[in-house]
Amino acid sequence: MKEKVSIIVFSGDMDRVMAAFIIATGAIAYDMEVSMFFTFWGLQALKKRVRTGKSFMGKILGIFLKDIGGIGPSRMNFGGLGRIMFKKMMKKKNVMSLEELRKIAIESGVKMVACQMSMDVMEISKEDLIEGVEVGGVGSFLAEARESQFSLFI
Amino acid sequence: MKEKVSIIVFSGDMDRVMAAFIIATGAIAYDMEVSMFFTFWGLQALKKRVRTGKSFMGKILGIFLKDIGGIGPSRMNFGGLGRIMFKKMMKKKNVMSLEELRKIAIESGVKMVACQMSMDVMEISKEDLIEGVEVGGVGSFLAEARESQFSLFI
Amino acid sequence: MKEKVSIIVFSGDMDRVMAAFIIATGAIAYDMEVSMFFTFWGLQALKKRVRTGKSFMGKILGIFLKDIGGIGPSRMNFGGLGRIMFKKMMKKKNVMSLEELRKIAIESGVKMVACQMSMDVMEISKEDLIEGVEVGGVGSFLAEARESQFSLFI
Repeated sequence: MKEKVSIIVFSGDMDRVMAAFIIATGAIAYDMEVSMFFTFWGLQALKKRVRTGKSFMGKILGIFLKDIGGIGPSRMNFGGLGRIMFKKMMKKKNVMSLEELRKIAIESGVKMVACQMSMDVMEISKEDLIEGVEVGGVGSFLAEARESQFSLFI
Repeated sequence: MKEKVSIIVFSGDMDRVMAAFIIATGAIAYDMEVSMFFTFWGLQALKKRVRTGKSFMGKILGIFLKDIGGIGPSRMNFGGLGRIMFKKMMKKKNVMSLEELRKIAIESGVKMVACQMSMDVMEISKEDLIEGVEVGGVGSFLAEARESQFSLFI
Repeated sequence: MKEKVSIIVFSGDMDRVMAAFIIATGAIAYDMEVSMFFTFWGLQALKKRVRTGKSFMGKILGIFLKDIGGIGPSRMNFGGLGRIMFKKMMKKKNVMSLEELRKIAIESGVKMVACQMSMDVMEISKEDLIEGVEVGGVGSFLAEARESQFSLFI
């Protein structure tokens, strides 16, 4: 039986989501089993480039929610400039983009779970998310975490 | 013997504190034992609605420290508007408030420890905190974490 | 064989770096073995007070990167004022400074690893970092984490 890793992706910052995917794909390379739980702002890492929200407040929130290509770094975003700068600096050093890392994560069998409660509160539907994502509650995280070698909250 | 979970609540953001309490109460529902360590900004989740601080700087800091009902989300707070919006959206979806989640956590036996050093530095006294909270150092976290199935830093 | 703890220091905030070092030195006092992995903004905790960067963008980034004495708290920094205030409040309560905590961590055998990829992207060279630091990839974190009693992402 393989060793397991569980990662909660709470943050929607480009740099933190990147750290999450690098640890996840790294653990796969080390022949571990990986589960990622996307909650709150982290849902942006699974969102298609669509406008979400049904109620008035949900639609307002939806204006601010990005997809994985649109999220900016936790520091020095400067209205989107930092995002572009970091993408360029990463490309120059041959570091994979978030889209590529996510693709590899999915293809290599990382279990991706979107948090049902966050989706309800933020009015994000399953159709707003990319393919290959399960929807689950805190129970699905706990079931994985108690079998995991280590768990991280990012 | 029950499986254990340890959670450090460093952040004082409404959304992160919510994630902490949802994991904590979820773990209790899964028949696990839970310890929460509140440090730095996380102390706001245990603070009564009182003004803290003794020295000049402590009093200035005290102006900015909220109680669990006053803390705002890590993103889109917009001077308190985001806090009100998220509370409304949560209520609409029948998600419990932070106050309710904390109450359930305490009643169901979650061990709540406030960090002594943070309290000293930020000039928060035991009287400033709600009932049912222990005060301890990093040692009380470590003692729990080394017996825990997993530990999170939130 | 000693119990192990692994800590990823992603954040470069004064207060979060402090939490990381307090847990690390606390675990050493409890006779555990500790590994710290500094990545992204966390590299500031290992940086000398030098200007980093080679390319145009790297140099711009370098203007904003501080050393361990220059980083500010995650909240209430107020353009550096918060940093000074917290330092004073910590000193008054006889809490060690970050520099002192780091010194103790190194002297007591905490393994300090700087993330190669972050250094490449942010154009920070090994010469920009203090003595006693190893450089490694996600693999060196994973190798430690799978043997650790618990792992934290800070």
